[in-house]
Amino acid sequence: MGWGDLGAFGEPSKETPNLDQMAAEGMLFLDFYTANPLCSPSRAALLTGRLPVRNGFYTTNAHARNAYTPQDVVGGIPDSELLLPELLKKAGYTNKIIGKWHLGHRPQFHPLKHGFDEWFGSPNCHFGPYDNRELPNIPVYRDWEMVGRYYEDFKIDLKTGEANLTQLYLQEALDFISKQQASQQPFFLYWAIDATHAPVYASKQFLGTSQRGLYGDAVREIDDSIGKILNHLQQLGISENTFVFFTSDNGAALISAPRQGGSNGPFLCGKQTTFEGGMREPAIAWWPGHIPAGGVSHQLGSVMDLFSTSLSLAGLQPPSDRQIDGIDLLPVILQGQLIDRPIFYYRGNEMMAVRVGLYKAHYWTWSNSWEEHGKGIDFCPGQSVSGVTTHTQEEHTYLPLLFHLGRDPGEKYPLSFASEEYQRAMERISGVVQQHKATLVPGQPQLNVCDKAVMNWSPPGCEKLGKCLKAPESDPQKCSWPH
Amino acid sequence: MGWGDLGAFGEPSKETPNLDQMAAEGMLFLDFYTANPLCSPSRAALLTGRLPVRNGFYTTNAHARNAYTPQDVVGGIPDSELLLPELLKKAGYTNKIIGKWHLGHRPQFHPLKHGFDEWFGSPNCHFGPYDNRELPNIPVYRDWEMVGRYYEDFKIDLKTGEANLTQLYLQEALDFISKQQASQQPFFLYWAIDATHAPVYASKQFLGTSQRGLYGDAVREIDDSIGKILNHLQQLGISENTFVFFTSDNGAALISAPRQGGSNGPFLCGKQTTFEGGMREPAIAWWPGHIPAGGVSHQLGSVMDLFSTSLSLAGLQPPSDRQIDGIDLLPVILQGQLIDRPIFYYRGNEMMAVRVGLYKAHYWTWSNSWEEHGKGIDFCPGQSVSGVTTHTQEEHTYLPLLFHLGRDPGEKYPLSFASEEYQRAMERISGVVQQHKATLVPGQPQLNVCDKAVMNWSPPGCEKLGKCLKAPESDPQKCSWPH
Repeated sequence: MGWGDLGAFGEPSKETPNLDQMAAEGMLFLDFYTANPLCSPSRAALLTGRLPVRNGFYTTNAHARNAYTPQDVVGGIPDSELLLPELLKKAGYTNKIIGKWHLGHRPQFHPLKHGFDEWFGSPNCHFGPYDNRELPNIPVYRDWEMVGRYYEDFKIDLKTGEANLTQLYLQEALDFISKQQASQQPFFLYWAIDATHAPVYASKQFLGTSQRGLYGDAVREIDDSIGKILNHLQQLGISENTFVFFTSDNGAALISAPRQGGSNGPFLCGKQTTFEGGMREPAIAWWPGHIPAGGVSHQLGSVMDLFSTSLSLAGLQPPSDRQIDGIDLLPVILQGQLIDRPIFYYRGNEMMAVRVGLYKAHYWTWSNSWEEHGKGIDFCPGQSVSGVTTHTQEEHTYLPLLFHLGRDPGEKYPLSFASEEYQRAMERISGVVQQHKATLVPGQPQLNVCDKAVMNWSPPGCEKLGKCLKAPESDPQKCSWPH
Repeated sequence: MGWGDLGAFGEPSKETPNLDQMAAEGMLFLDFYTANPLCSPSRAALLTGRLPVRNGFYTTNAHARNAYTPQDVVGGIPDSELLLPELLKKAGYTNKIIGKWHLGHRPQFHPLKHGFDEWFGSPNCHFGPYDNRELPNIPVYRDWEMVGRYYEDFKIDLKTGEANLTQLYLQEALDFISKQQASQQPFFLYWAIDATHAPVYASKQFLGTSQRGLYGDAVREIDDSIGKILNHLQQLGISENTFVFFTSDNGAALISAPRQGGSNGPFLCGKQTTFEGGMREPAIAWWPGHIPAGGVSHQLGSVMDLFSTSLSLAGLQPPSDRQIDGIDLLPVILQGQLIDRPIFYYRGNEMMAVRVGLYKAHYWTWSNSWEEHGKGIDFCPGQSVSGVTTHTQEEHTYLPLLFHLGRDPGEKYPLSFASEEYQRAMERISGVVQQHKATLVPGQPQLNVCDKAVMNWSPPGCEKLGKCLKAPESDPQKCSWPH
């Protein structure tokens, strides 16, 4: 989902009444970022509070390449990483993930091995259908075991876009919350729905209800579900004890627009890029009785802050034996403070850009290759800013391209290198970047090796369902990451 | 001002708390249009309820050219046109215009000859300063007579952007409202501020206060002033008897961005074009006790509707001897109805596009000429949609380019000509266009002839101020309209 996909963020159809109301009752973050323009690394960053380059969710197979966890990837979340649910357990929390995990699908990466107590959802994207010979269909898990596969037991009609998955995820969420409330146990619910990810889907009752087509139907179903979850918290009388945060893991995938992709509002390009459209996210904090209604914050925020903030809410300290990139947002949310901190925009192993205050400096620019672009793969459809949305990897390390995101949120007008403003801003930014790079210890890259043998051939529980498939011989290869 | 310039419409700095609150207390129109992508014709349409091609605010000097009223233009609003204030007079209204008139500056076009009772402001844009030899500085009027000139008596500091004009216009508005309330007289106030028009300006106390630079400072001052006006109505106890509507006369002038131009949000291009960025406008209706708070409407609306709606509010009928393009929005605003009606997008003498429902068909496409574009004049900076933002005038009359503005508000993905959806939509649209063209009687074009002799050399009142200037010999020419 993109920054521009909610009514509260200016989507012209304004079809998200529940999220808009959530914003009206809570705090809207206008300058909130994901940690990567792609799903897996962002989710790894969310749960570890650390940049993907630290927690291993990146590749070194080629320079500045986006990578994720398709089902042939060998790596996943390392045991050495401490995940939010692992830490929350110490404070007595029950942790559940509903929806897409995406931090590795092999046994050692299973979410219940990394702090979660319950899971309903799947380890990978809902791509398919596959033939179960070349590629197995993606499994859906309940806790430790698979309970079926997409397109077989969990239907997605690619022609109509119909699938009832969001309703399943909603019911799981409501049931979990009820159970926790009944047992008076604190809980962490990671509701990782994926209806707006291609192939986009919606339940029958939402199909055709949006001005925006199928993508809008999916957004409307998510919006409706969030309304039901918030209402459920209120009905149970625990809304004032429950901190809720809504955000997304990358910008709208413009490459799938208009049927399968959303909107990044006034921002440049989309998912896969380190322009604002790729990484600035809709974000809303909600906590009745604590967060003043109608709040608006320009705090530079990150999904990694949700790690630190959640720990803070649970009365826990972040780990002290490693670099944590997230910050505790509670002073921002509860007292309206603004904390000075940079935002780093990584693509794979390269720091492409950094934001400090209202300035954003691009050290590298790239949308995708001319070769890909020539095939119609376009992360910036209808947009082209000379020298900015480049189709070759352009290094600007010695003279970064600098934008003022207040005057120029669309990254169209680089500041003159000769201007005093450029000199002043870059002096400050250079110091921030220098410090960041000097202290950066990259993690072991997890997304380098792919092997068809590790795919979801025989997930745990497959034997009970008669759904075990035969894996091919192991044949590890360097994963190919074209952009 | 552009669609994307208000917080309520997704401007990322969200610096318009008063307008956002006006929207929260009133009704937000998301599909509201001006009648032309340029100022003078839009304003003529607003006050006559008629398309510029009917009321004469267009040119036939060349095909599909934008034209307005610089001070050498000979034409202006014809006497045969009936303006809203002329009609409101019949219901006992006192009418005041504050700010830019722009319907002709010669004596016969004076606003007090066309229904207004009071005026404080100027007939033309605040361009300058001029040398008073080749070009006179633009006069500022109080009622019938000039009271000074821009850059002489009404200062605009082009270097800092400082000018206190919005404060003057605000005070005029507050005083007028107080006077009318005291005398229990109904009133029509046309508050036509121009701080966001290049050269953009703001008062000293607003300079440097916006994240967005000078343009944002101007927006903030307008926002603050509107808050004060609404508050004044409430303080006087007449808010429930006063219908207030906020909108703009064209999209943000991206050619002046980022310092002097605003945002059209997710829409394509800006002022001067018939893409959404040129003509879709922010729009808010406010009338406490009548309009339900927090309303949102997808009614296709037009500035011309303000003519018909205002008459309806005053209990008057629109003139029956001519075609009125505006419709009465009261059923929309008060009962939430949706009225089926098309929106026509004209550029000069050509109907470039039409919107019917969520579909928009382009019969002609043009941004500007290659020649202009080569000189850096760009109405679509950073945007380029192949075959759409064309630099030659492209006719599509026999096979219009069709967009679905719900799925594709940015006009990036024309529908396939072969699709059933295209056929179905165009069938309906063709009928609408055919009927429109068959019954269209163009007015006498007013913006064809220019003459340096008619400039603001010696406006009424100049003698009292010692500010009369000598006009050159009359030398009528065809006005040159490059785009």
